[in-house]
Amino acid sequence: MQPFTFHNPTRILFGPGLCDQAGAEIRPFSDRVLLVTGTGSAKRTGAYDRVRRSLEAAGVRVRDLEGVVSNPRLSKVREGIEATRAEALTAVVALGGGSVMDTAKAVAAGAVLDEGDVWDCFTRTREIAGALPVFTVPTLAASGSEMNGFMVITNEETGHKLAAGSEHLYPRLSILDPVLTCSVPPDYTAYGGADAVCHLLEPYFNGSDPDTPLQDRLAEALIQTLLEATEAAVARPGDVAARSTLMWGATLALNGLTRAGIGEHFFAVHMIEHALSALFDVPHGAGLAALLPGWMSWRAAESADKVAQLGRRLWNLSGGTRREEARQTIAALRDWLRRVGCPTSLSELGISAGDHGRIAENAALQAGIWGVDALYTPEVVAAVLAQCQEAA
Amino acid sequence: MQPFTFHNPTRILFGPGLCDQAGAEIRPFSDRVLLVTGTGSAKRTGAYDRVRRSLEAAGVRVRDLEGVVSNPRLSKVREGIEATRAEALTAVVALGGGSVMDTAKAVAAGAVLDEGDVWDCFTRTREIAGALPVFTVPTLAASGSEMNGFMVITNEETGHKLAAGSEHLYPRLSILDPVLTCSVPPDYTAYGGADAVCHLLEPYFNGSDPDTPLQDRLAEALIQTLLEATEAAVARPGDVAARSTLMWGATLALNGLTRAGIGEHFFAVHMIEHALSALFDVPHGAGLAALLPGWMSWRAAESADKVAQLGRRLWNLSGGTRREEARQTIAALRDWLRRVGCPTSLSELGISAGDHGRIAENAALQAGIWGVDALYTPEVVAAVLAQCQEAA
Repeated sequence: MQPFTFHNPTRILFGPGLCDQAGAEIRPFSDRVLLVTGTGSAKRTGAYDRVRRSLEAAGVRVRDLEGVVSNPRLSKVREGIEATRAEALTAVVALGGGSVMDTAKAVAAGAVLDEGDVWDCFTRTREIAGALPVFTVPTLAASGSEMNGFMVITNEETGHKLAAGSEHLYPRLSILDPVLTCSVPPDYTAYGGADAVCHLLEPYFNGSDPDTPLQDRLAEALIQTLLEATEAAVARPGDVAARSTLMWGATLALNGLTRAGIGEHFFAVHMIEHALSALFDVPHGAGLAALLPGWMSWRAAESADKVAQLGRRLWNLSGGTRREEARQTIAALRDWLRRVGCPTSLSELGISAGDHGRIAENAALQAGIWGVDALYTPEVVAAVLAQCQEAA
Repeated sequence: MQPFTFHNPTRILFGPGLCDQAGAEIRPFSDRVLLVTGTGSAKRTGAYDRVRRSLEAAGVRVRDLEGVVSNPRLSKVREGIEATRAEALTAVVALGGGSVMDTAKAVAAGAVLDEGDVWDCFTRTREIAGALPVFTVPTLAASGSEMNGFMVITNEETGHKLAAGSEHLYPRLSILDPVLTCSVPPDYTAYGGADAVCHLLEPYFNGSDPDTPLQDRLAEALIQTLLEATEAAVARPGDVAARSTLMWGATLALNGLTRAGIGEHFFAVHMIEHALSALFDVPHGAGLAALLPGWMSWRAAESADKVAQLGRRLWNLSGGTRREEARQTIAALRDWLRRVGCPTSLSELGISAGDHGRIAENAALQAGIWGVDALYTPEVVAAVLAQCQEAA
């Protein structure tokens, strides 16, 4: 195990119906909030009315920021920052999925900047020195943004999708009401599950320390549960028990728990997917699903033992050699992705081998910002993409 | 899954040698601290000198409270409260095991009481409305006190050992330096491991909701890892990797992670053990080990399925019937306890069947305070004790 700091101050309220407590919970922190939402689903399901009513009943004035799209855009963040400053709002509330939560965080960080542009925080030319308090009411189990300090924003002018993180961006409070996720259609439910599983698989394979038995078992426990819960929620969208397991599991998948102690690690699949969805606007979870089996095949060349460990522990696989067990493990993961309705190759997303160069160049820019460009050169990314092009 | 609130604000610094950073980390919070220690091991190992030197180098004035014993006593807590008030100390630092950390928390809570006695907080006649900031540098992997809001103190005048908890008692910061635990002898290493495993097993079997697949798998992951790490640390006391796994695993075992969402639950084995060690002054972990197999046998009458689930997942047991699998599971746990050198029955602690009545009466008082006296009557506790008297 490697040295680490763990500090996750986010308070979680979990339970069916708890979104109605948003007002009472947020009022002690702020009486003028920006309420960030997506393109309409929260209004259709009634979640928006409930949260807004709860806020107003508690004496919180609400200014809306509507229309956040998947692969959320910098222009919307700037719009939110302007409104927040103009109306002297003192907190940001996100009601939606990862895109909405990330937009809320970017607004919260940008609103307190003395000078410069919020995008500088993503290109790492400016430090995130503070933020307005952020509150989230997620409507999708996927990103884990509700209990971490990360955000991912797309700059539509430059075509770059970049991640940034700060201790100031942990939500003060997140209300996890699993019933709100029951209206998520099967495809996005599956993409969310794939996203959460990917958050666990990447550190599992990419940690610099090979001796992390505790972190391995915690990740395996979460992955196994998420595989089962995603499948159940896709089959029975209104199954609150499955939705609850999926929601809390997705939160724990990226709240720091399984990453503490594994040493240096990097989210390479996420980086490549960010390039993919910046250029092709595919749903984030679908992009990850299309990359995962190919990336694991590429990874297995070096880490067949670890891939095989996953297969033995999750699917009781035993194939004689480690390499054969690794192959079976990747096949089992691909089978799961197919069962829940995810793509498992780039060709299923309409991306051809001729696009790999562009994707690799875009990813290289991110690798430079994160300081891993020596490891993830355009050639390496292209080699990964080649494994992902067609389903094995 | 049941509704829950999760909020664990403790910051963890984990790594070999980090105890030397105590001063730099604590100084921003306080320049006059009470440093609570045990009966001498921290002085013998040099940990005391390092932490004290670090504090003083950072400009923190140190007042000692030495001599905390296992099953820590109220009189020592009162001594600490007096010193803290007399010298206007502004924080409490614990360097030691669970007894030292619990004493530090009780001093921190008692020092800010406007009126009344700190023992009232344990009998639940007074609320814990605040506390001085608490910092811990654990020297034993066991109690989890370094990342939770609980404390257990023995009132030697009344012979009662009671637990109390509050959000105010979460340490601000805990420095987990696994090298400090390398000098713990094999017996106490094993007792610590048994304590941590018991913190996981009790909620695993006692949660009110039978449908908690995520919490089950997380608990199983931690239990399995702790069993292995304890055995390794007992066999090779200087194995820093095993000590690291054991230390972080024991912290996660009682930091709220596996309990969130399981519904109402109660630490019955801990309650009975507190009665045991209040009356017989046995080491807490040894008392738990002596009770665990018998309690699981008693529990298996109602919950054979859950006991069998544990055995199938941890030891790949399959015995035909659930009842037979449960029997094998308990035998496997007993084997582990014996391998690491723990007692597995009351008779091994020198306690006879004639003592059960007294233990049951003492436990009944605690059950009353926790409001579970309808469930844990003296008769029920005596029935559990009967199963624990001799090793099967």
